[in-house]
Amino acid sequence: MRRIAAVFEQVLGAPPPGEVWIGDDAAVVAAPAGRFVFATDAAVGGVHADLSLTGLDDLVWKALVATVSDIGAVGARPTYAVVDFCAPSGTDLVLLATGVAEAAAACACPVVGGDVTTAADVVVAVAATGVLEGEGPAVLRSGASQGDVLFVTGPLGASAAGLRVLRTGAPGPSSAVAAHRRPRARIAEGVEARRAGATAMMDVSDGLGIDLHRLAEASGVGVALDGVPVADGATEEEALGGGEDFELVVATPDPARLVGAFAAAGLRAPIEIGRCTDDPAERTLRGLPLARTGFEHRLG
Amino acid sequence: MRRIAAVFEQVLGAPPPGEVWIGDDAAVVAAPAGRFVFATDAAVGGVHADLSLTGLDDLVWKALVATVSDIGAVGARPTYAVVDFCAPSGTDLVLLATGVAEAAAACACPVVGGDVTTAADVVVAVAATGVLEGEGPAVLRSGASQGDVLFVTGPLGASAAGLRVLRTGAPGPSSAVAAHRRPRARIAEGVEARRAGATAMMDVSDGLGIDLHRLAEASGVGVALDGVPVADGATEEEALGGGEDFELVVATPDPARLVGAFAAAGLRAPIEIGRCTDDPAERTLRGLPLARTGFEHRLG
Repeated sequence: MRRIAAVFEQVLGAPPPGEVWIGDDAAVVAAPAGRFVFATDAAVGGVHADLSLTGLDDLVWKALVATVSDIGAVGARPTYAVVDFCAPSGTDLVLLATGVAEAAAACACPVVGGDVTTAADVVVAVAATGVLEGEGPAVLRSGASQGDVLFVTGPLGASAAGLRVLRTGAPGPSSAVAAHRRPRARIAEGVEARRAGATAMMDVSDGLGIDLHRLAEASGVGVALDGVPVADGATEEEALGGGEDFELVVATPDPARLVGAFAAAGLRAPIEIGRCTDDPAERTLRGLPLARTGFEHRLG
Repeated sequence: MRRIAAVFEQVLGAPPPGEVWIGDDAAVVAAPAGRFVFATDAAVGGVHADLSLTGLDDLVWKALVATVSDIGAVGARPTYAVVDFCAPSGTDLVLLATGVAEAAAACACPVVGGDVTTAADVVVAVAATGVLEGEGPAVLRSGASQGDVLFVTGPLGASAAGLRVLRTGAPGPSSAVAAHRRPRARIAEGVEARRAGATAMMDVSDGLGIDLHRLAEASGVGVALDGVPVADGATEEEALGGGEDFELVVATPDPARLVGAFAAAGLRAPIEIGRCTDDPAERTLRGLPLARTGFEHRLG
């Protein structure tokens, strides 16, 4: 909560009456009724982003979107975020603050507090709260049953393709580069999927290959995929293992209701990719084994 | 939210019915009514702690206590925390999780979510929520008026003295070393001070010298100190500039009410250190200029 106030005042708006944002020991904000949702994620320069290819503002954007995406992935709507910047002396704090302000605006999730700390690496840690509207539980990874139909909210692999374009200089669609630099969290889709009776949901942050394994393991079901929608300019391998697309995977026993709800809300149609099966060991794509591909943090 | 689930399951308890803690995209927890408080802080190995002198568990403890202390410093009670561990491969995650579990228990603030990320440095980022009980505003840094009496909730400099003992091997009280390794957040004191009509409050995280300047600047008052309570084994310089004691500085127009409230709650008596004056430029200790000593993060 130190000098970050001076940085943020340049780029963030003023809080509503009765609230206190950046500048004191803690932020004071309006509370949700009933339940709230709380998530955190960190982005590290050199691990989550090659800072010779993308900017500090992009790193911050990704950290905020990844956190907000976790809020959306249980069907909640993000409300507030706090941000820790850890960075070497001389780091462009205004660029960091600009990136977080842009991401906060894109996610409709104001940044209300933060801290600045010296470190050798650039590390951006974001925490966000969210609200579950109305009655009914959050949509967890563990709720899928055999027979549920699996959807994703959009084609996959764009972020990985964009990184490849940036690394190699090979031709590729600008949409892929934009998806890598400035991914979007699927908040409205998560909220609609919960309303429409989704039984399980998660965001594709580490790669569909690994994230689907996690959903299946948490739910105790198998998964049989018919295919995977591949983003413009991406390969199927990138769609399965690339990660950071932040599309949602949704399981539902009532696919027509999900499709209808998305259409009524003016959202892009969800894409059916397969179904949950009764064999908890099954992980297949077009009848062949589905590799556990994606990004796993292993420190142990 | 990845492998951290496996780490935390060893050391954290199970959530109450209806709540979801670590293991899904986001934690789902009971919401406060009205308003809530949100703060974040990070601790970096080599910056906030010399990891040759203190443990990873101590670093995590300090990160959680610093964040919870910010919640207490506006008069709120902490409710939930989330933790990001960024660390090199091979880091002892069980030690990190043990430290956070111990700190969470000491602060009565359960850790409900987290993330693990690879990084060159050890960085622990904590975010916590809290509730303001009853009516009335949070106690900010900016509320002090001329004539308000200034208190601290305990003697200062213990953490700095403990670090000196660890560094030099010189004799010193074990209480100082404990204060450096495992500082305490003054939650009950903050809640009581708010109930007793405190007008301004903050925690001494960077050193009384600098933190009092901040309170005076935010409130537009001067400060005239009669003295500073020095912790056992510490010097006055350490009490003024050491930081990380996490005692609270409290301004109040009704000192007898504050003292009485602390006594009624069974808390250690607050220590009067001076008063707020009408000259916003005044910063004195026993009539001499009070240096702006303490820890300032400067990245720019």
